[in-house]
Amino acid sequence: MHPSDRLQSVIDATGSIACVGLDPRPALLPPELRARHRHDHRDPRDNVAAAFVEFNVAILDAVAGRCAAVKPQAACYEAYGSAGWRALEATVAAAAERDIPVVLDAKRADIGSTTEHYGHMVFGGAPDLDHQPLPGIGADWITLNPYLGIDGIDLVVDPAAAGAFVLVKTSNPSSADLQDVALAGDAKATVAEAVADLVAEWGAKRMGERGLSDIGAVVGATYPDHARALRERMPDTMFLVPGYGHQGGGAAGACAGLRTDGRGAIVSSSRGIIAAWQDDGDENWAAAAGTALDAMNADLAAHRP
Amino acid sequence: MHPSDRLQSVIDATGSIACVGLDPRPALLPPELRARHRHDHRDPRDNVAAAFVEFNVAILDAVAGRCAAVKPQAACYEAYGSAGWRALEATVAAAAERDIPVVLDAKRADIGSTTEHYGHMVFGGAPDLDHQPLPGIGADWITLNPYLGIDGIDLVVDPAAAGAFVLVKTSNPSSADLQDVALAGDAKATVAEAVADLVAEWGAKRMGERGLSDIGAVVGATYPDHARALRERMPDTMFLVPGYGHQGGGAAGACAGLRTDGRGAIVSSSRGIIAAWQDDGDENWAAAAGTALDAMNADLAAHRP
Repeated sequence: MHPSDRLQSVIDATGSIACVGLDPRPALLPPELRARHRHDHRDPRDNVAAAFVEFNVAILDAVAGRCAAVKPQAACYEAYGSAGWRALEATVAAAAERDIPVVLDAKRADIGSTTEHYGHMVFGGAPDLDHQPLPGIGADWITLNPYLGIDGIDLVVDPAAAGAFVLVKTSNPSSADLQDVALAGDAKATVAEAVADLVAEWGAKRMGERGLSDIGAVVGATYPDHARALRERMPDTMFLVPGYGHQGGGAAGACAGLRTDGRGAIVSSSRGIIAAWQDDGDENWAAAAGTALDAMNADLAAHRP
Repeated sequence: MHPSDRLQSVIDATGSIACVGLDPRPALLPPELRARHRHDHRDPRDNVAAAFVEFNVAILDAVAGRCAAVKPQAACYEAYGSAGWRALEATVAAAAERDIPVVLDAKRADIGSTTEHYGHMVFGGAPDLDHQPLPGIGADWITLNPYLGIDGIDLVVDPAAAGAFVLVKTSNPSSADLQDVALAGDAKATVAEAVADLVAEWGAKRMGERGLSDIGAVVGATYPDHARALRERMPDTMFLVPGYGHQGGGAAGACAGLRTDGRGAIVSSSRGIIAAWQDDGDENWAAAAGTALDAMNADLAAHRP
């Protein structure tokens, strides 16, 4: 199924536009979980990886059927090398088993011939030694960086059922360094808006049946004015909205980029969900994630058009 | 040692500014090597990884002492998931054993709190379950994407001996989509030039004893006019110049960004070195890489200021 159609069908079925960030760090793991895995293996990286997988699977069970998607942040896993990558693979597989759409937050980009490998990584097609295609990690979407232009986008999404969220306006303080720089001429106001125009153009050829493209856009919750302006430039683009919660973006800001029909965006939160147990103590940490997700869903529902 | 000082000392010792791209793909492996690893393991990814490591180690032996650095392209390995990552780890370790500086070409970027994990990945510091720091993959440099601003840069290079090449003007055709867009005002002409100014500013605080910063810049060999203009904006910045050879950039273009003292850049080639055996047949494929590197060194020497 077209990735944006699938995402919309899950949103309709769950009533949720929340995307749960699976960004595990040792400091976010409940102490009892850390303690149980401290001596599993000789290499401490393998212990971290085992703890991440147990943590993520429990979170996935708690959020399944109550969220639009999950979003593992590749960096959290890559910090532990190949052991971390095994944990990432197991996490994506566990989400797929639970029918939860997966956004692999990897923010990749490269020249064309190299970018193709990132498509292979996520969506499959890497050749083995006999030139037979191998499956990918099995995510539905990947996040991509637009700095190299369409070469960094088109080969990744070449498979029929491949979606990409392209960074347009990110949620971090220094996003202004480059993204807010003003361009010459009247038609394009900032670098981010020029990228928005490219995303709309790239995505026009990849529309799903429900009227949204599978070339999406990352538009941070921390800059609602930008989100409204960017929605005008990208009316048929699915937004991935990071920055809700821990980074300081509220529900009103997170919903600023939604279309007037209430569609067209998923809102991501990581620490506010997966580390919700820290507010209540150690026990029932997975249940705390589910409760926090319910509160986020209610908060977003109150602000959706 | 400061990464740019170390790189310069290797350039002085070898007389080479060449950077050998370790971008293995099954189609670039000699048939006899592929045949030997086809049935090593049950998972075909493990066979690819084993073949990559044997290939890379032989190439490293052939180029050691005759190049400035090697540059594994992360995408080629990530296409094979955690098995590919193991091959990447083994490749970086083998280069370090041979005292060859390593540029991990990963083109990463993210918001600050996430970017720190990429620093951990490359340079070490990821906490284990007891909060003890783990070593990183052990590369000397990483390539980074500037789209998120300094947040995407500063935490990565926080360790004392960490270098980063920031994408400024890439070698691919669609680099113009965003990088060549004109900015408002007179002082900054294009997006790439605005990034160049940021790189010079970010790097000014991280100068080595030999007068070059460890915040470097990626400036493609395919756009020599841009390289000359960018050098004026980044006089003390080490350039990583991709696009020589297979992508169509000649030695004159590749050397366009060098300073008048002949310093300040390394020039990367991958397929032209590691797949040189394809021009001569299957035998002595590692020796063919060494011969191709010698030819590249002579070609560059004839064009260096």
